[in-house]
Order: sequence, then structure tokens, then C-alpha cells
Amino acid sequence: MTASETIGIGVIGAGLISAYHLAGLSAAGGAEVRVLAARTSARAGPMAQRFGVPEVATDWRAVLERPDIDAVLIATPDSTHEEIAVAAARAGKAILLQKPMAMTVSQCRRIIAAAREAGVDLQVSWMHRHFEEVVRTQELLASDKLGPVHHVRIRNATAGPHEPWFFDSTQVAGGVVMQLGVHGIDLARHLFGDIETVAATTATLQRERRFPSGASVASDLEDEALATYRFAGGALGSHEMSFNEAAGTDRFRLEIYCADATLLLRTTRGALAIHAPRLFGGRGWFMPELPARPFGERQHARWLDILRGRIPSDRSAEDALAGQMAAEAIYRAAESRREERPRAAGAEARQGTDEGA
Amino acid sequence: MTASETIGIGVIGAGLISAYHLAGLSAAGGAEVRVLAARTSARAGPMAQRFGVPEVATDWRAVLERPDIDAVLIATPDSTHEEIAVAAARAGKAILLQKPMAMTVSQCRRIIAAAREAGVDLQVSWMHRHFEEVVRTQELLASDKLGPVHHVRIRNATAGPHEPWFFDSTQVAGGVVMQLGVHGIDLARHLFGDIETVAATTATLQRERRFPSGASVASDLEDEALATYRFAGGALGSHEMSFNEAAGTDRFRLEIYCADATLLLRTTRGALAIHAPRLFGGRGWFMPELPARPFGERQHARWLDILRGRIPSDRSAEDALAGQMAAEAIYRAAESRREERPRAAGAEARQGTDEGA
Amino acid sequence: MTASETIGIGVIGAGLISAYHLAGLSAAGGAEVRVLAARTSARAGPMAQRFGVPEVATDWRAVLERPDIDAVLIATPDSTHEEIAVAAARAGKAILLQKPMAMTVSQCRRIIAAAREAGVDLQVSWMHRHFEEVVRTQELLASDKLGPVHHVRIRNATAGPHEPWFFDSTQVAGGVVMQLGVHGIDLARHLFGDIETVAATTATLQRERRFPSGASVASDLEDEALATYRFAGGALGSHEMSFNEAAGTDRFRLEIYCADATLLLRTTRGALAIHAPRLFGGRGWFMPELPARPFGERQHARWLDILRGRIPSDRSAEDALAGQMAAEAIYRAAESRREERPRAAGAEARQGTDEGA
Amino acid sequence: MTASETIGIGVIGAGLISAYHLAGLSAAGGAEVRVLAARTSARAGPMAQRFGVPEVATDWRAVLERPDIDAVLIATPDSTHEEIAVAAARAGKAILLQKPMAMTVSQCRRIIAAAREAGVDLQVSWMHRHFEEVVRTQELLASDKLGPVHHVRIRNATAGPHEPWFFDSTQVAGGVVMQLGVHGIDLARHLFGDIETVAATTATLQRERRFPSGASVASDLEDEALATYRFAGGALGSHEMSFNEAAGTDRFRLEIYCADATLLLRTTRGALAIHAPRLFGGRGWFMPELPARPFGERQHARWLDILRGRIPSDRSAEDALAGQMAAEAIYRAAESRREERPRAAGAEARQGTDEGA
Repeated sequence: MTASETIGIGVIGAGLISAYHLAGLSAAGGAEVRVLAARTSARAGPMAQRFGVPEVATDWRAVLERPDIDAVLIATPDSTHEEIAVAAARAGKAILLQKPMAMTVSQCRRIIAAAREAGVDLQVSWMHRHFEEVVRTQELLASDKLGPVHHVRIRNATAGPHEPWFFDSTQVAGGVVMQLGVHGIDLARHLFGDIETVAATTATLQRERRFPSGASVASDLEDEALATYRFAGGALGSHEMSFNEAAGTDRFRLEIYCADATLLLRTTRGALAIHAPRLFGGRGWFMPELPARPFGERQHARWLDILRGRIPSDRSAEDALAGQMAAEAIYRAAESRREERPRAAGAEARQGTDEGA
Repeated sequence: MTASETIGIGVIGAGLISAYHLAGLSAAGGAEVRVLAARTSARAGPMAQRFGVPEVATDWRAVLERPDIDAVLIATPDSTHEEIAVAAARAGKAILLQKPMAMTVSQCRRIIAAAREAGVDLQVSWMHRHFEEVVRTQELLASDKLGPVHHVRIRNATAGPHEPWFFDSTQVAGGVVMQLGVHGIDLARHLFGDIETVAATTATLQRERRFPSGASVASDLEDEALATYRFAGGALGSHEMSFNEAAGTDRFRLEIYCADATLLLRTTRGALAIHAPRLFGGRGWFMPELPARPFGERQHARWLDILRGRIPSDRSAEDALAGQMAAEAIYRAAESRREERPRAAGAEARQGTDEGA
Repeated sequence: MTASETIGIGVIGAGLISAYHLAGLSAAGGAEVRVLAARTSARAGPMAQRFGVPEVATDWRAVLERPDIDAVLIATPDSTHEEIAVAAARAGKAILLQKPMAMTVSQCRRIIAAAREAGVDLQVSWMHRHFEEVVRTQELLASDKLGPVHHVRIRNATAGPHEPWFFDSTQVAGGVVMQLGVHGIDLARHLFGDIETVAATTATLQRERRFPSGASVASDLEDEALATYRFAGGALGSHEMSFNEAAGTDRFRLEIYCADATLLLRTTRGALAIHAPRLFGGRGWFMPELPARPFGERQHARWLDILRGRIPSDRSAEDALAGQMAAEAIYRAAESRREERPRAAGAEARQGTDEGA
Repeated sequence: MTASETIGIGVIGAGLISAYHLAGLSAAGGAEVRVLAARTSARAGPMAQRFGVPEVATDWRAVLERPDIDAVLIATPDSTHEEIAVAAARAGKAILLQKPMAMTVSQCRRIIAAAREAGVDLQVSWMHRHFEEVVRTQELLASDKLGPVHHVRIRNATAGPHEPWFFDSTQVAGGVVMQLGVHGIDLARHLFGDIETVAATTATLQRERRFPSGASVASDLEDEALATYRFAGGALGSHEMSFNEAAGTDRFRLEIYCADATLLLRTTRGALAIHAPRLFGGRGWFMPELPARPFGERQHARWLDILRGRIPSDRSAEDALAGQMAAEAIYRAAESRREERPRAAGAEARQGTDEGA
């Protein structure tokens, strides 16, 4: 497609997160969502109507066959990612894949390989990266005014998902680590670089969950986890993940303690509070007014710019693979009760032990 | 002494923390500090004058010999605690001992044994326990309105001490873990019960420190640490300790995530913010107005009440021993890179291997 | 129309505020905006497309002639309100009229009379009344836990409108008092009852305004005003109005000091902070979690419920008349430099001096 | 006295405010309070002991006779100020006089005249001027980064004094305007210059007051007031004064709206929050870390520096006279229900109508 052409998009999946992407694409402009696929038209219909999508499909393959679709957004349960993404790549469609990328490191590798082979652009959706306070933080860290990062505290916490499939281990890559923690892992890697070692502990505090609908589900998936990281750059990190929070966290909290500065994100001081005497000429807290853009607009405008070739592709898929390795290291560390290295999983995977190939 | 008598106090040590205790005793009323001992009268004099202490001494033994001294406050470097405290116990003086209790678990045991043998009351000073927001939190946790505690986050952080002896490993029990972290450990045990396992990582980020005076000191003591706990009651805990903070923490931050409530202490929401729908009839944050008492008054009034027999003695010394075990477990875990149990040190100690007895 | 029927709506005006109403109607559901009228199709077209309105018109009369239109939203410059609203009433359309209601008290009276005569429902849009924090405040004031209201402080402030017509005295009823201050007047009357006396001072601080577009406009309309009120119920009120604010106010700030309670709305404590010991069992601030409904949804759902006869009509038009009287009293008081009564204008009007009746 | 000599001070009055001055003098250092006078030694004794004042007196004249007293602090009820201050001046003592300066503008004039004649330094104690956030605000206003001041909002509010004499109109110059409001008036004049016109309304909301002691008092003095100002520099000001506040204000709140900046003092954003894009390179709020000095230290150190001739004398007494004029204008405006000028009282006074001279 050319830089000015309208991009034809197909959306596969009609859960809550599809609404985020559809609203973001609408706000970004320059793309047309031409078809929305879900398992049943009862699911696809209402969302298509809400966002003005002209057609629905109940088989995702139908989306891939359409020549007027340049790119697909895949927002289905984790267990289906590999099959759909590999097929989309082979059909020549650019891909935006919802996190977590897949069930295992090996699946992630296969998706990346398929996209590379087909020459299609592959992105994994890390929405937190595109929040205004995160973008500003990245700029601040790139300045030389903060000094080296000493300690990072991340908290990812909610009261837990309200859809039963999130607690079905055949459909998901894991519990709170894979569903929520991977956001924090990606944010940490995005801002602070590679994670060298991981120590962790996990717990299942609610073995039975009741939903507002009245339905309930039993699950052994971890719903509480605590990981600590040593970053290659020298910083230490603590990372709390919870599906049991009563109140306090809006998606994430992030505290960054540097030699000469402290940054607090999404705490009770607001979206971003900066203590950086070398920036502001004195000690104190500065809370910048951040741009008020529609939710999701920045992320999707960037994706469309990548698709049009206006900016280079993001490394979000490679980062998703590295994040998956870190997440798997959390599970291993919680089991072994000792420090683990994210790389180990990759080594194992490279030997093909779980690839069956 | 009888319940109404004025209590005669001797203070040993003239550092910053002695000023805290002298102000607290003055605010509490009912005691007379009769002598202040320090290594030199140049150190003792100004502080004695500031707080109206009538006499100074340059040998702490002179304090113990006075019959008009009922109780001593020991606020000298860690390495001297055992000798002074044991001598004070044998001289029949009640003791308030500054934290950390001593250099090692074994020293702690010997101090406790000496006090028990002499029949004198022994307290270790955990000032954070007596902060109004902590007292209120303890009451809230004792109610049945919060549900079980799931996760606890503690941060103890400052820019580091300004007195060189804090970085001299012959005088102190350890770096930031022993000087600052023991506060958080005690607070955690005080509020949430025994710590079963510890995982940890430590670092020395500033190997040379410059003080405002212009002096500098080299030290290998850890100045940054990160520990995670599993409490016997089932909660997980993360504990950051830092002597490298630019800004953000006033002594400590504490976040308590319960099944039905969240409590934030000393964060940007103020001293205490409580989300507890079962207490307040709805979702939201309540920030109680806490009593405005002079700093240190509550702790010292309580101590004097213990000395007068008005209330039972606190278990602060036994807790200090348990906290020392947890702190030593942090060091072992940072070394072994795996989970350790605080009890291990006790087991070893009980076998007498480092007690020489 | 029956209670379950879809309500056909016509929107007249395509400025910023129309977008608020269109989004609110869409969120509320149950109504169809069937036509959008603006002076030019260049103005009407983009907004119609954005909100999926199927038809546009360049003459508002065309809207009134359509039988499929049950109700009209009038969001045009103040000087056109009387003509359009009276015509709409005569055409039998229910009316939602943007504030300020009209240019003068007399015009307001004529609009009310026309609606009454035609038997159509007439509402003036006071969006602030429907904010969640205001609804909650109204409930709290209705309880007996706050004690009588002593003092009310209102601030309405922005950096000023970005559309030149707001500064053209032939098109608008006044400056910041009429454009922004009437919101605070209505909020005050809505929550605290009738205003008995008004003292005021006004100023024009920026006699020339430059807009982001590069255009500029000269105007003598007041852009800063300060009024004080005595409420019939005994409370005192201070009311700041500004089109010159650099930062600090998001539409409004409201502080309510009662005998036994204090309420702060839209301050730096968040949307609503309540100190009310008789409600919460102790001194402190409670910040309730308020429902997160789409912006404008509550107001428009209520309007549609009124139109369907599900709830009684609001007195928003009569209140707009009373608010207009208060606003005119501000102008008179600023001129006379003494206290004035809002009723005076009414008295004058009742004598028919400017009514031609 | 020479610049290095210890200054001998006598304190007259033993109420709450004397404790503020005694603590401030102690923190400032370099002065000795040698005698404390109060009506009874039962009042003088405990305060003298608390602050280590060696002697007490029950007749203030005894203080003025002592040659070792260089300066007196007068902190007695308003009705006694003129007599004591004039006598002190004649005795050659420098004077720090508690606010309000006296009962009337005429009394203020006579005190100033007496001090001038005797050649002694005369200060009126405006403690708010010396708060760190006020000092910083003054510096910011003096920079050229904020633009002209448009609007100022001041609130002075407490739950009311706990000593009955504050409600006895024979002993005090007035109610909340004179006791609390004069602080705000002085702060306003200190920061923003002369007040040109005043409009006001006052009320007595609690005609009977009960104190924690169980005693009660009836009073017609105003306990609620609302004034608006036009400053000579063009700014508008609103000023709330209350002795009926449940919660919300710690002595004062101050909001300053400038053309290019907004400053909030002692609001829920902390002691000082600054929005000033030209200072910080962008929109946002900066909350400076202010020096943590003991309460009262700055004011008293400054006073002692004036007494030693190290810095020029402050105009605090002339400002007190001007403030008294503004306060009296508030009473007149509340009576006349129209704008009044502070100068009028002066004009009247200059005609000698109430001076008997």
C-alpha cells in the first residue's frame, strides 16, 4: 500500500480488548475496519454495529482470504494465536497480535519465523508503552539528567478478569503473570533494558472465582505473583502482580528511583511526578500536563505509520519473545525457589525439546 | 519505683537519635534525664544544654553506677550494644536499646539472657511502631473488615546517613539492611506476623560516599537491597531498602493489599489512606485525621508506663532477635541466590556454634 | 411518543457543545439524531459524519418541519435562542436549549411562555448538575449529617473560548458572567437555594484576544468577575469567574463549608472530598469512588426519560430565568457598586417595561 | 546593643501565642527571654518553666523597668495594646506587638507616634509573612515570569478560639475579621500591594459558643465574613473569614491567578504548587521542597537581626495601620452594603474626630 492509501483492516476477536483497538483505530484515522470476525455472529454483531464495521464473519479464515484486507488485528484467546497468526502471515497480511504473544516461547518463535518468511510486518500490542506518561518517561530516561536507575518498582493489579476463559489453562498461557505481568515485564524491558535474573514466588489465593454474572469457575492458575529482577544495566526491580486487588492500582504503578531523580507513574500524585533537581533547578515534584489524546489513538496511529512505511517497524514481537522468556523464568523461579535466567528457556527451546520438530 | 515516682534516666550516646529520645521523653513527661554520656564532653555538652540535662559524663560506666538512674537509653554504635547493655542489666537498670539490637543474633541472645537473669526490663526502640498511622493500621487489621492480607509492600529509603561510622563495618552490624531495613522487618512482623522465607538481592551502588562536611568514606557495605517474604499467615511481601534515594520516601512507605481493603501508609495520599468498603459503606478512600502529638511522645510515654508497671512489657527485644534473624537471612539469601528461612540462623545459634558457650 | 419508542431528535448548531450533546445522546441510547442543522454544510457535514447523523440542513426551519423529529437541541449563539426556541415550541417540538437561555430576562420569559402555550417540554442544559460529584453532593446535602451551609466558594474559570463570536456583544448575552458564570449560579441555586442579594465587581483584562488560529478579536465584554451572594437560607457565597486562567480549574471548583462538614468538589483532592464526621465515624477526608459513566450520558438519559414521561420534568427553564436574573444583578451591582437583588429585574419585567405587553 | 550581644527580652502575656514566640526565639538563638509577665503567676509559671524563662512577673510595668531588657514582646488582649506599647516605647524598649495592633486605627496611630518619638523599633507580628511558602511566593511574584496578578483568593478559617476573652467585645477589636482576617489582609497587602476598595458582608452564625472546657459564652461579634477587594495594581481579591469551619483550612489558603501562572498555597496540593510554564519549560505543577526550619525560627531570627541593626527595619507597623483601615472598611462596607475605601477611616482620623487631639 502507499503512504496515503486507506488501510483495510480485519479484526479477529470481539472481546473487551477489541473495543480498545477499534476505538483507537477510529481515533487514529486513515484506516477502515472492513470485517470483524468472532466465533458467533451474536458476539460479532453488537460490536460491529457499535464501531460501524460493515461486515461480520464467524470464521477467521474468511478474513484472511479477502484482498481488501491489508492487516489483521488478532485478539482471540492465547491458545489460538499461533494458528491464526501463522495463517495470516502466509496470507500476506500485516499483523497486530494481542498479548501475551502465545502459549510458549516456542510458539512465539514460530510466529516470528512465519512473519519473517512471508515478509509481513508483525507487531505485538503493548498498549502501556504508548501511554503519554510512559512516552515522557522514556524521553526523560534518555536525557542525562536523572543519573543511573537504581531501583524500579512495578505493580500490575486488578480485581481479576470477568470472563471465564481467562481461568481455563487450556486456553491461556498462564495466570496473572501471563495476563497482566507481561505488561510490566515489557514496560520494564522497554524502559530499562534486558532482565538478567529473576527470582519469584507465586500463589493461588482464589481457587474459585465468582463473576458478576453469577457464574463461577475453579482454577489453579496463579492469581498473585511477586518477582524481583536484576537488570543487565545494574538496576534492581520488584514486580507485583495481582488478580486480587480491592483498590489502588489503575492497570499499573511504576516507581523509578535514579541516582539523581525519582519518577512516579500512575500513583496518587497523578499520571507522572518527577523529582529531578537537574531538570527543574531545585528539589521538588513536577507533575507535567500530558497531552490529552483519545485513548488508544497514539498506539494505533503509530501502527498505521509503520504499515505505511513512514516510520521503521517496532521490535515489539522480538520484545514479546524476550518477555515470554522472562515470564517463563518467573514460573521456573517460583518452582525452584532460586534465581533463574530468562535465557535458559530460549536455550532449551533452541534445542527443539518442546518443538516436536 | 512506684507508679507515680519520677523516673531517673541516663542517656548513653549523643548522636542524632539521642535527640529524638530526649525530645520524646520531654514531651512524655514524668521522667528526668539526669546524665548524658558520650565519648567526649564536646559531644555531650551541647546536647545536654539543648535538652536541659544537668550533667554529662564521658564514661558510660559512670551512668550505671548512679543510684538515681532507674533506666538507661543506649544509643551508641551497634558494636558497643552488647557490652553496655549487659553491664546495664547487671547494674539493675531498665534498658531501652537503639536498633539494630546488636551485631549478630548471638549478641542479641546474650543481651536478652542478661536482662532476664538480672530481672530488668529490656526494650529495643522501634520508633515506627508508635507512629499514629501504624497504631491505627494495627487496629484496622485487628478488625474483621479488611479480609486476609494478600500483599505487603515496604520501602525504607533515605539518601544515606551523614555520619562516617555508619559505613565502618567494624562498628555496625551491616549496611542498609541492618540500619534501615530492620525497621521495615520489624514493622512487617509487628503487623503481619512471622516471616517464613526470605529471598533477596543486595548491591553496593556508592562505594565512596561524600558527606556535606566534605569528608568522604569508602565502604563495601550494601547500600541497596531488595527482599521478598512469605509470611506464615500466607501473605507475600516485597521490601526495598535504599541509602541512595534522591526523593520519594519519608522513612518508609507501606502498602497493604487485603482481600477486601487496601491501606496506603506514608504515600502521596498522606499518612494513611484506607479503602475499606465494609468500614465506610462504599468504595472510596478515607484519610483519617490522626492525633497530632509531639514526635516521640507516644513511644516514650509507653516506655515509662511499662517501667511504672502500668502496662505489660512489650516483646520488642524478642522481636528484635527475630528481626535480626530475618536480616541475616537476607544476607544469606543474597549470597545463595535462593530462598532462606530466618529460623536457620536460630537453629545454628542454638547449637552454640558461634556462641562460644 | 410512548415510553418505549425511539425518540427522533434534531440538532441545531454544530459547535463544540453540539459534540457534547451528540456523544451524550449516543451513550444514553434510545434516541436517534435524524438531522443536524448548521449555517453551512461545511460546518454541519463533518460533525454529522463523526456522529453518524444521516442528514444535514442549512436552515433550522427545515428541522422544525419534519414530522419524524420529536425534540430539538438548540446550541446556537445566544442571540438566536429566542427566535428558534419560540418557533420550535410552536412547531410542537420538545426543546433542550443550551445555556445561557437567552440575551435577557425578557427573552427568557417569552421562551417559557411559548413552551407553556404550546404544551411542549422545555429544558435548559445545565451540564454541571449532572456530574456524578454534584449528584452525590446533592444527596449529601439532603441528608441531615452536614449541618447548615455556612459558606460556599465557586470558581468558574478557563483560558477563554476559542471562537470569535463569544466576544461579539451582538451575538452573546454577556462576557464571562453569562458564558461561564451562569453555570456556577445555576449550581449554587440548584444546591443551596435562592440568592437574595448580589454584590459584584467585573473587569476586562484582555481587550484583545488572539486565538490559536492566528485570528484576533477586540472586545469590551467582561472577562473577569467576582460576585458575592447572600442566600435566602443564610449561607454566604463567593463566586469567581474568569476567562483569563492559566491553570487550576477544570470547568469549576466548589467548596462547601457546613456547620459539621466540609465538601470539596473538583479540587486537587479529586472530584469530591468529604469531611463529615457524622457520616464516617471520625474526622478525616473521604473521597468516594464515583460511577464511571460516559461523559454526558447521565444528563441525556434523564432528558429522554423526561420526554418519555418516565420522570417528571425538571425545572431547568424556570431556574435558567432565575439564574439570568442573578447574572443581570451581577452586572447592576458591578455598576452601582452596591448590593443588588436578583428580583429587581423581575420586578421591572413584571411592569412590562421591556416586554411590550 | 551591638550586633553580637545577646538581646534581653521580656515577654508580656502567657497565652497560646506566647508559646509560639518563645519557641521561635529559642530556635532563632542569640536572645535571652529574661522575664515573663502575666496577670497571675499561675498563668506565668508553667509557661516560664516550659521555656526555661528564669523569672516571672505579675505586673507588666516591672518588665519595662528592668535595664537588662532590650525588647519586649506584647501578646496580651487587644484592648491593652495601646497602654502597654506606649509605655514600653517611653521606657526605651524595642517592641514586637501581637496582631491585631490595637482596637482602632486611632490607637494604632498613637502607638506608632510613641515609638517614633522614643526612637524605638516597633514591629507588629505577622507570622504568615514568614512562612516558607509565602517567602517563596514573594520571590516568584518579584520575578517577571508570572505576568500580572488577576485574581487572588484568600481563606482564613478555624473552628474558632478556645479562650472566652476572644468573644468579649470590650477586650478585642472585633470578631473574625480582626482576629483572623487581618492575617489575610496583611498577606494580601504584603504580596499584592494596596487595597483600593472593599465590599463585604458579615454574619454571626454562633451566638453562643461552647468550649471544650464546658464553659460557654454569648457574643454578637461577627464569626463569618466575606470581603472582596480591588487592589490598586488591578487585581481582584476575594477573602473568606470564618470561625465556624469544620475542616479544610490550616490557618489560610491562598490561590493566586496570574496572566501566565497560577500559585496555590496551603491547599490540598501541599504548601505551595506552582504552574508557571515560563519558569519550568512547560505546563504542569511544580511543588518545591521548602526549607524545613523550626516553626517561628525565621520570623524571630529576622526580628533579632533588625534589633541588631543587621537588616533594615520592616514596615510591619505601618502595614498594620493600613490593615486596620482595611478591616474597618470591611465593617463599614458590611453596614453600608456598598463599596468602601480603606482611606476613609484615615481621613476621618486625620481630622482628629476620634483622637481628642
